[in-house]
Amino acid sequence: MKPSSSQLALAEALRRLPGIGPKSAQRIAYHMLQHDRDGARQLSQALAEAVERIRHCERCNTFTEETVCALCMNPEREQSLLCVTETPADMLMIEQTLAYKGLYFVLMGSLSPLDGIGPREINLGKLMARVADGTVTEVVLATSFNNEGEATAHYIGEMLKARGIRVTRLARGVPVGAELEYVDVGTIARALMDRRIT
Amino acid sequence: MKPSSSQLALAEALRRLPGIGPKSAQRIAYHMLQHDRDGARQLSQALAEAVERIRHCERCNTFTEETVCALCMNPEREQSLLCVTETPADMLMIEQTLAYKGLYFVLMGSLSPLDGIGPREINLGKLMARVADGTVTEVVLATSFNNEGEATAHYIGEMLKARGIRVTRLARGVPVGAELEYVDVGTIARALMDRRIT
Repeated sequence: MKPSSSQLALAEALRRLPGIGPKSAQRIAYHMLQHDRDGARQLSQALAEAVERIRHCERCNTFTEETVCALCMNPEREQSLLCVTETPADMLMIEQTLAYKGLYFVLMGSLSPLDGIGPREINLGKLMARVADGTVTEVVLATSFNNEGEATAHYIGEMLKARGIRVTRLARGVPVGAELEYVDVGTIARALMDRRIT
Repeated sequence: MKPSSSQLALAEALRRLPGIGPKSAQRIAYHMLQHDRDGARQLSQALAEAVERIRHCERCNTFTEETVCALCMNPEREQSLLCVTETPADMLMIEQTLAYKGLYFVLMGSLSPLDGIGPREINLGKLMARVADGTVTEVVLATSFNNEGEATAHYIGEMLKARGIRVTRLARGVPVGAELEYVDVGTIARALMDRRIT
């Protein structure tokens, strides 16, 4: 006795989701079929529509349903300032701070030569084309502070400096609200080096 | 700046999956759109087909694409023996032992009055109709050994015994391969009570 082929196909397809193994896939398939067929229909449609409609913004490379996204089209954003992030989620985090008024460029990844992710995979050609007309005078590098993010920031920084663009990086330091006792030593060391006069 | 509406709809739909919160949903949506659009298409189709095709077997209540599933139609299975499980996954586990040659009935749940799951929700009417013709002479209760599963087994057992059907329960005891030191005391107590002459 095997599960029906549609059920096997569903469990197999669910395994394509990141972080879902065979047991979870089977459990999810069971849950959706037994308790949430509406949810299954909704997810099916959402996946199909998203794959159909979502593309990359021609200017900032983020996900959008337009040729150029609404943020890039907004004339009130500061045109000379460009913030580089790894993902659309990182870009949204920065937007939520309400502390940034410039434009963005989303790499959709970070350099990771061992995983086969080089400059082409993170759209550096598109970034260079984006800054070629001279409107952008400062690029804020907001990649992650892990190894890949730091390497990516370094690599991009060198390329941009060679073209005479001012390159800055988000400040490193102790997170707001953190108790020193629970912050890692590397962060504290960095926060000491970068200490500021108040 | 908000994510596009298709992307929001996808993240929202992914939250219908059990165990997926808002951050995971956003991360999965990003992954599928950026790295696995084929997987997204495949999952969309699998969900739609599964919802469309899968129903419950008229005899054993498991998921199937037929009116009566292949196992129930198999004349070589012992017709007088019926094993009751909570889910199709539990049924598959028992099949994998190759130690059972009878038929099944899948409750699709277990009694849990506090969650509003009563006899009707776990298809007890269908089970009683299934055993009404007298072919089945023994029912093996293979519900879980947690509170809900035990309560369910007790409830069903009483109903079946009142109809003169022999009712058995899977043996409790120390798992195969387990070291006693790491087995919980309740299991050991049970294994002592149910000890067998070798």
